[in-house]
Amino acid sequence: MTNQHLVIMAGGIGSRFWPLSDEKTPKQFLDILGTGRTLIQLTLARFEGIIPIENVWVVTSEEYTDLVRQQLPEVLPSHILSEPERRNTAPCICYASWRIKKENPRANIVVAPSDHIIADIPAFQACMEGAMEFSAETDAIVTLGIRPTHPETGYGYIKADLSYSSSRLHGIFRVDEFTEKPDAERAETFVKTGNYLWNSGIFIWNVNTIINAFRVYCPKISQAFERMMPIYGTDKEQAAIKQVYDKLESISIDYAILEKAEEVFVCPANFPWSDLGTWGSLRNQLSTDAYGNAAVGAPTDFHETHHSIVHTQTLQRVVVQGLDGCIVAEHNGTLLICKLSEEQRIRLFH
Amino acid sequence: MTNQHLVIMAGGIGSRFWPLSDEKTPKQFLDILGTGRTLIQLTLARFEGIIPIENVWVVTSEEYTDLVRQQLPEVLPSHILSEPERRNTAPCICYASWRIKKENPRANIVVAPSDHIIADIPAFQACMEGAMEFSAETDAIVTLGIRPTHPETGYGYIKADLSYSSSRLHGIFRVDEFTEKPDAERAETFVKTGNYLWNSGIFIWNVNTIINAFRVYCPKISQAFERMMPIYGTDKEQAAIKQVYDKLESISIDYAILEKAEEVFVCPANFPWSDLGTWGSLRNQLSTDAYGNAAVGAPTDFHETHHSIVHTQTLQRVVVQGLDGCIVAEHNGTLLICKLSEEQRIRLFH
Repeated sequence: MTNQHLVIMAGGIGSRFWPLSDEKTPKQFLDILGTGRTLIQLTLARFEGIIPIENVWVVTSEEYTDLVRQQLPEVLPSHILSEPERRNTAPCICYASWRIKKENPRANIVVAPSDHIIADIPAFQACMEGAMEFSAETDAIVTLGIRPTHPETGYGYIKADLSYSSSRLHGIFRVDEFTEKPDAERAETFVKTGNYLWNSGIFIWNVNTIINAFRVYCPKISQAFERMMPIYGTDKEQAAIKQVYDKLESISIDYAILEKAEEVFVCPANFPWSDLGTWGSLRNQLSTDAYGNAAVGAPTDFHETHHSIVHTQTLQRVVVQGLDGCIVAEHNGTLLICKLSEEQRIRLFH
Repeated sequence: MTNQHLVIMAGGIGSRFWPLSDEKTPKQFLDILGTGRTLIQLTLARFEGIIPIENVWVVTSEEYTDLVRQQLPEVLPSHILSEPERRNTAPCICYASWRIKKENPRANIVVAPSDHIIADIPAFQACMEGAMEFSAETDAIVTLGIRPTHPETGYGYIKADLSYSSSRLHGIFRVDEFTEKPDAERAETFVKTGNYLWNSGIFIWNVNTIINAFRVYCPKISQAFERMMPIYGTDKEQAAIKQVYDKLESISIDYAILEKAEEVFVCPANFPWSDLGTWGSLRNQLSTDAYGNAAVGAPTDFHETHHSIVHTQTLQRVVVQGLDGCIVAEHNGTLLICKLSEEQRIRLFH
C-alpha cells in the first residue's frame, strides 16, 4: 500500500461556528467536540494504519500553515501545501495531484475535508480500503456517499443504481447523477426512493485518473500546475504558486469534474457522518441528556432546558434555566446566545 | 451638625445575585450598576456633605472587614465594627448605638443598608436633613418611607396619616402601623388608599432614643452591649464582642423595636429608590433599549430580545438573540442564564 496518499483539505474559514471559529482559527483547528483533539487531528487519526504518515499531504491557506504544522507535527513540512488565496476545491486538488505525481507517479489518493466527523473508524477504514483498491485498479473517480438518515436540504445528493453489485466492484456503484442541494420536498423524495446518497466530499482516485480528468475538463488549471513540475519540492515552489494562483478559476471539484466525468462511482457508507456544518449537526454528534441538551467545555447544569447546546472555552461553570433549542457558545471571552433555528444568521452577528 | 453619625449596615450575603455575588463578595461590594463604584461606595457618597466622614461607622461581618477597609479607605478603621456572626439587624444596630454613645453621648444617627440605590442625591439629602433635624430635637424613631410606584409584594409597608402636617414636623408623619409583606390583593389596596409607604430600612434617631428603646424592648441585647462600654475603642473590644455575640437573639430591628415603640414617625420620600433585591429591580435601575434590555459590563448586541438583562464581568463581548425576560449573568467565569420569572430559584442553582 505504499502508493496510498492522503490529501487533507484544510483551507475553510468556518464562519458558521462563530464565536468558536473565526478567520484566525477556523473550526478544523478547534477541539469542537471536547475530545482533546482538533477536527484536523481527528481527520488524520482516522487514516492511521491505512495510509502511511509520510504519504499524507495537507493543502491549506498561507495564514493557517503554522497552525497545521503545530497541530500535525508528524506530517512532513514539505507536504503542507500553502494556497496564497482561496480558489475553492478544484485548484486545491489539482495542485496536490500534480505535486504528488512528481513524488509518486503511481500514487493512489484519498482526498478528505479536515472538518468532518466520523465516529466509527473501523467501518470508515473498511470502506476506504475497498474504494482505494478499486481506484488503484481502474480509472474510476470514486466518492464516498452517505446513506441519508433524514431529508436534509443542506447537502448535495448522489443518485446511484444501488441494486446492482459484484465482488469485482468492492461494494462500489456507478453514479447516475449529482444533484445540488434540494428543497424539502425533493429531499423527502430522494430519501424515500432509497437510491440517493449524501455527497460527503471525500474522494478516492489514482493520480493519473484525476490528472487526466483535469486535462480534459479544466485544461487551464491543469496546465498551470503541470508547468511547475520541475520546481515542485524546490525552494522556488511557493513563489511560483503565488504567481499563478490569482489567475485560476475559483470552482469546486464537483462542478469542475464530478458532474462532467464519465467513470464516476460511489462507495455507500452506512456509518454516521457529519460535516459539522451547523450547530444543530454538532449537537447531534454529542452525548445529550434526556432532554436533548449537550455541553462541551465547562461543567453545565440544565434546568427546564431542552434541545440546547452549551459550548464554552474560558468559562468555568454554566447554569442554564428555561432555554429551548438554543446555542450558548463562548470562545475567548465572546459569548453568543442564539436560537438554533436562527443559526444561519450567526455570520451576520460577528 | 458635628453630632451627626452614619451607620452603614454591610453584613448581608446577597445570594440572590449569584453568580455576581456570593458569600465571599456580597452585592454591596460589587459595582453592580456598572458605574465604577460599588454599592457600599455609592452609599457612603450619598451622605457626603451632610455627615462628616469621621462620624461614619460600618457594621459588617468579620469576613468582610477587609473588603470594607479596601473599598472605604476614608472610614476610620476603628469605626469598622465586625460581627463574629450574623444576628439580623437588632444586635447590629444595638452594638453600633452603644459604641457611638461611648464616643458621643449626644450623637444623632442615620442607619442605612449598604446595598440600596437612590439616584436623586439632592432629594435624598434634603429628606435626610429634615429627618435628622427632627430626631435631634425629639425622641422620635424615624424611618424613611418610599411612595409606592406599584403594588410590590416584596416589601413591608408603613401605614401613616399623611393628611396632617405642620412645619414643626419637617414633613414627617406619625406611623399608624407596620405591615409585613402583603399578598398581591392587599398590596393593590395599599397603593390605592394612598397612605401606605414602602419600608425602606433607613432609620433616623438620636442615640439616646434608640438606646432607651432597646432597654425597654430588648433588655438582654441592650445590657450585653452596655456592659462593654468600658472596653469600646480598646484592644479588648473584638474579643469581648466575640464572647457575647452567639448568645444574642437573632431578630430584626423592625420586630424588636419599630413595631412595638410608640413614637415612630415616617419621612415620605418621593424619589426613586430600590433595594436591588432582585434582578428585575436591578433591570429597572438601568438604562434600557427600546425593548427593555439592559447591559452592564461587556458590549452587548441584542437581536429579537426583550426585557432581558446581561451583566458580565470577565467576558469581552456578548451577542444575544431570541431571549425574552432573561438574566444572563457572568462573574469570575461562572455563567448563569435564567428566566427573570424564575429568579427566586437562583439560590438553589449555586
